Amino acid sequence: MSVPAGTPAVNEDEAALAAPFVKCLARLIRAQDTYGLQDGASDAELLTHFIITEQQRREIPIIGDPDPDVLLRFNIFYTAVGLTIEARTGLVASPTMMISHEGFGRVLLTTGRLVVFSKTVRDVHRFGFATLGKLAEAGAKLVDDAIAVIEAYPDVARA
Amino acid sequence: MSVPAGTPAVNEDEAALAAPFVKCLARLIRAQDTYGLQDGASDAELLTHFIITEQQRREIPIIGDPDPDVLLRFNIFYTAVGLTIEARTGLVASPTMMISHEGFGRVLLTTGRLVVFSKTVRDVHRFGFATLGKLAEAGAKLVDDAIAVIEAYPDVARA
Repeated sequence: MSVPAGTPAVNEDEAALAAPFVKCLARLIRAQDTYGLQDGASDAELLTHFIITEQQRREIPIIGDPDPDVLLRFNIFYTAVGLTIEARTGLVASPTMMISHEGFGRVLLTTGRLVVFSKTVRDVHRFGFATLGKLAEAGAKLVDDAIAVIEAYPDVARA
Repeated sequence: MSVPAGTPAVNEDEAALAAPFVKCLARLIRAQDTYGLQDGASDAELLTHFIITEQQRREIPIIGDPDPDVLLRFNIFYTAVGLTIEARTGLVASPTMMISHEGFGRVLLTTGRLVVFSKTVRDVHRFGFATLGKLAEAGAKLVDDAIAVIEAYPDVARA
């Protein structure tokens, strides 16, 4: 029996799940699953917590401390960006995050003496993406931008 | 009445208190003193908590969470390094600290796209200096080293 073509959203999800950044993210989530509770879960299932719709996002209050789980996801996301940069350039890009308990702070990704990414964050509470496609796109863009910075300053990245 | 010459230690303290880095550090401590409880204190008195003798240092356990006050001093120290770099170069050097509640972590000072200082820390619990002179020396060395990095990569520091 031939498999019928999926809806565009399903095809987009499949493309997203095949992206190197998303695969790296799923691997990192599995690595955190110390007791193997999610061994049977697919990558798409592991990533469901990263997906929040516009409606869900609006319902998350940004007053008060963010959920520790969202801080962990935020951390894993930028760690996956760093690892994907490393896979493509051979240079370790280590994330440094200074997030206050209230969810305000800064994320830096550095390679050697070079800052390849820097962002001030104010709403970690609502960290998430509307679809798997958006997640894949955001990760790939961060990786591409960081690699462009490394290519602009190759000696500093290796200093 | 002429002031008698002090002991060498006292003279060393006076020299330390006149150093730009130490003055900046004292100013930052005053800035944190919201209720003006220490308005009457001299710079030397404000800095006493930064001074721990070798004996005191050994008595501080490095197991368990560091004292929140020591984390605050650690933070103020590197902020003062950043401000002194700014005063000398005109470039903002912002500190990013990622210290776990157990006192392990990383400190970065960045200027533009340049990492001017990076350190892995393991014993924030024992953060302090044997004398005011040592404090002044450590701060001045960090500032000088960071400025040497900025001079080596002037375009990256302004990127």
